[in-house]
Amino acid sequence: MKQVIVVGHGGFPGGLQSAAEMILGKRDNVHYVGMTEEMGVHGFTQALSKILESISGGEVVVLADILGGSPLNNTAACLNERGILEKSMIFTGANLPSLIFVISSLDDYTMGELKEQTLLEQANFFSFIRL
Amino acid sequence: MKQVIVVGHGGFPGGLQSAAEMILGKRDNVHYVGMTEEMGVHGFTQALSKILESISGGEVVVLADILGGSPLNNTAACLNERGILEKSMIFTGANLPSLIFVISSLDDYTMGELKEQTLLEQANFFSFIRL
Repeated sequence: MKQVIVVGHGGFPGGLQSAAEMILGKRDNVHYVGMTEEMGVHGFTQALSKILESISGGEVVVLADILGGSPLNNTAACLNERGILEKSMIFTGANLPSLIFVISSLDDYTMGELKEQTLLEQANFFSFIRL
Repeated sequence: MKQVIVVGHGGFPGGLQSAAEMILGKRDNVHYVGMTEEMGVHGFTQALSKILESISGGEVVVLADILGGSPLNNTAACLNERGILEKSMIFTGANLPSLIFVISSLDDYTMGELKEQTLLEQANFFSFIRL
């Protein structure tokens, strides 16, 4: 079973979780880890490792808040240490439309297809609204 | 002075705020209103109205979490009631890269230019990362 992990700065993953669960309900295969100032890199890595242990063997789709930040960099390092970076997929710029698309498409596609479909859908993740 | 208002479901705006402030620090012209289940539409509209009163006269850039949700619909209604919908700009699919771009570009452009530049930048707001 594929798993989704949302990582990011501070309360971002938790905030996205709250919005996604209002719309889709709770999903057991979607996990959220925020790197708060209090927990730091060590606490973040511990929390992420705990999730990775619990889903051992599953394919992982990571949605990170932004490219180049400490949460994404430490997530990649963590996946690499466990030898699962190769079979994981990482997107940056997580938002509600992208998360809902990935969650809803997870069981319809292989990892390769999911990557293609997500990038095809990308143009709809952010829009200007004419009212 | 242009103002940014992030609206969305539940804890999403607050989560985005926490991440953005870790990176950029606090900004007085950026506001966040989440529609929690407890506050409902009425409480959301009250909180938003309070912000709109405090920034009376300013041009408003709205970043909403998703198209078609109650937070965006009620925000548009609220802007319309106050006669400022026309001179406001609304984007959906708020995320950390788009918020940082908008905040950082706010004083460099007119509203029309900001719309164009944001849409040009859109392709960079969500990315697949090859590691």
